[in-house]
Amino acid sequence: MAEESFKDYGKEEALSLLFEGSGFARASNPSFEPAPGNVVVSAGRLFVEGIDFDLTYFPLKHLGYKCVCAAAGEIYASMARPRVLSLRLGLSAKLDFGHVRELWSGVVTAAKEHGFKTLDLDLAPSPNGLTISVSAVGEETGLTKGRRVKARSKDLVCVSGSLGAAYLGQQILEREKRSFEKTKDDSSQPDLEKYKMLIGSYLKPEIPSGAVARLEEAGIYPSHGYLVSHGLSDALKRLVRDSGLGVKVYADKIPFEGNSFAYGKEMDIDPVSAAMNGGDDFRLLFVIPILSAEKFRREFQTFDIIGHMAQPEVGAVLVTPDGVELPVKAQGWNNE
Amino acid sequence: MAEESFKDYGKEEALSLLFEGSGFARASNPSFEPAPGNVVVSAGRLFVEGIDFDLTYFPLKHLGYKCVCAAAGEIYASMARPRVLSLRLGLSAKLDFGHVRELWSGVVTAAKEHGFKTLDLDLAPSPNGLTISVSAVGEETGLTKGRRVKARSKDLVCVSGSLGAAYLGQQILEREKRSFEKTKDDSSQPDLEKYKMLIGSYLKPEIPSGAVARLEEAGIYPSHGYLVSHGLSDALKRLVRDSGLGVKVYADKIPFEGNSFAYGKEMDIDPVSAAMNGGDDFRLLFVIPILSAEKFRREFQTFDIIGHMAQPEVGAVLVTPDGVELPVKAQGWNNE
Repeated sequence: MAEESFKDYGKEEALSLLFEGSGFARASNPSFEPAPGNVVVSAGRLFVEGIDFDLTYFPLKHLGYKCVCAAAGEIYASMARPRVLSLRLGLSAKLDFGHVRELWSGVVTAAKEHGFKTLDLDLAPSPNGLTISVSAVGEETGLTKGRRVKARSKDLVCVSGSLGAAYLGQQILEREKRSFEKTKDDSSQPDLEKYKMLIGSYLKPEIPSGAVARLEEAGIYPSHGYLVSHGLSDALKRLVRDSGLGVKVYADKIPFEGNSFAYGKEMDIDPVSAAMNGGDDFRLLFVIPILSAEKFRREFQTFDIIGHMAQPEVGAVLVTPDGVELPVKAQGWNNE
Repeated sequence: MAEESFKDYGKEEALSLLFEGSGFARASNPSFEPAPGNVVVSAGRLFVEGIDFDLTYFPLKHLGYKCVCAAAGEIYASMARPRVLSLRLGLSAKLDFGHVRELWSGVVTAAKEHGFKTLDLDLAPSPNGLTISVSAVGEETGLTKGRRVKARSKDLVCVSGSLGAAYLGQQILEREKRSFEKTKDDSSQPDLEKYKMLIGSYLKPEIPSGAVARLEEAGIYPSHGYLVSHGLSDALKRLVRDSGLGVKVYADKIPFEGNSFAYGKEMDIDPVSAAMNGGDDFRLLFVIPILSAEKFRREFQTFDIIGHMAQPEVGAVLVTPDGVELPVKAQGWNNE
C-alpha cells in the first residue's frame, strides 16, 4: 500500500490528484438538466466504521464500490437512472492518501458501471473512524411515472436475487476475525474458498444496472420499488406503509445463495431469519401488476416472485412452508 | 430535556413521531418534477462531532438549523432554489430520542425558512459521536443559467455579510469551555453578553433566503457563487480554479462584525486572518459583472464588494491597506 501522506498535499491538490485520470471532471455542487417532464429523485446513505463496515476485513476498494451501489440501488428502486453522485469522506488519522486512493478506485469503477455522469468528492477529518456519506440524484422519465399505477391486492412482489447471503458472509468474516484475534496466528490462512459466494455477497454486492431500462422496454411498471439493504422485513414494512396495503411473502419462495442452509446450520443461523433481518443484500424489490406476471417471468428469469400484496388488515406477514402466517416484526432503530 | 429512550420505539415509529406535526410528509428517496429547461443542482455537507461541532456548547436545535443552512447556502450559491432535503444521522449511544427531537426541531424550522418542499430523514447508530450528513437538491431556472456569462477580469466579488465572526465566536466558546473545565465552577455564569453577536454568528448563521430571487428580479446574474463555509481563502481558491482567472480581495473592504477588532485583540486573533482561514461564516459570495455594479450597490445594500477578478497570472491575492499583495494560501486537507 502506498504510504503517501496527506501532509504532502493541500486538500485541493489531493482532490485534483484523485480526479486525474478518473474519467470524471471535478464538480462541486454537481448539476444536470433533466429532460422536460422527467422527475428528479434523490437518495443516499451514511456508512459509519464499526457499524456498517469493519476495515480489518473490508478492503477499501470494495467499500468504495459498495457505497456507490447503495446509492445507485436506491435510484433504481425508484425506477430512475443515476445522474450525479456526491461522496463526502470523514477521514480518521490512521488513513493516509494511499488508502483514499484505494477507496476512490472502487467508487470510480462503480460510478462508471452505473452510468453516473458527474461526481463530487469532499474530504474532511474525522476524530473516530472513517465516515462515508454517499448521495445520488437520478432521473425518472415522466413516461414511466405516468404509467405507474397504484398497487392492488394480489400484485406480485419480486426480488432481483438471493437474500440473506450478505449477512451470512459477514458472520463468516466476523468469526474469522475473532478466531484470528484469539490465536494471533497469521501463518495458517483460513480456508474461505467454500464460503466464497457468501463472502462475495457481503463484500461485492451486485446491483443489476440494466433492470430499470429492461422493465421499461418490457412495458412493466412497478408500483413500488425498494433496495433491500437492511433485511427483507424492513423493505416489507416500508412497502406496507407506502402502499396502504398488506403483503404476504412465502418463506419457500425466498431465493437463497447455493449453500446458505448448509452454512447457516454450521453457524447456527437460520437463513430465513438472515434474509428477513440481515442487511446489505442490495437486492431490488419491485411490486408489479398481476397482469404483468407472465411477461415478467419470461423477461426476468433472474428475478424471483416471493409473494404478493394483500388486504390492509393482513399487515406484513411471512408464510412458513406449513402455512403459518408470522407477522413481520419492526426493527429497532439500530436493527438490534 | 425529555428522557425518551429509543428503546421505546422501533425506527419506523421514531421517524413517524418526528414527522408528526412537522408540516412535512415523510418521503424516502424524495422526488420532484422540475420545470422544463430548469437545471438540477445537488449539494451537501458532512458534520462530524468533535470536528464540526462540540455538543458541550452547541445546542442541538441550533445544530439542526445550521446543518440545513449549510445545504441551503450551497444551493443558493449555485443560483438555485431549495427543493428536497435529506438528513442522515449517525447517533451515538449518549443521545436519546429527546435529543433527536431537539435537533429535528431546528431542522424543520430551517427547512421551512428556506422553502424545502420535501424532507427525508434516516437514523442509524454511530459508535463514536454524532454524525450528520445533510444533502439537498435545488432547481435553477433555465433562464438564469442562460443569462450567466463567463467571469471577466474586473468583475466584482461580493459577500452577503461579515466574515470571521463565526470563527471568533467559536474561539470564545472554546475558551469558556476550557475555563469551565479547569475550575469546574458552575455557579459563576460567564458574562457572554458582550460577545453575543460573535457567538451568534457561529451558533446561528443566517443565510439570506431571498438573495437568489432578488438577484433575478434585479437582472443581475453572477458568473460564480460560493458559500463561504471554510474561510474566504478556500472560496477564493475555488473561484480561481473554476474561473481560470485571478482574484484580488482588499483587506479593508472585508466587512467585520461590530467589535471583531476589539475582541480579536483581546483574544490575540487577527480578524483578517479569521476571515480568511476561519470557518462557518455561511456567507454567500457572488461574482457579478462589472456592468451590474451600480445596480447591485443600489439593490443589495447588505452585501459588500470586497474585490474583483484579475488576470490569471495574479492568482488569488489579499491586498493589505498599504497595497502589499499577499498570495492566498491553500488550506491543508483538514484546514490546519
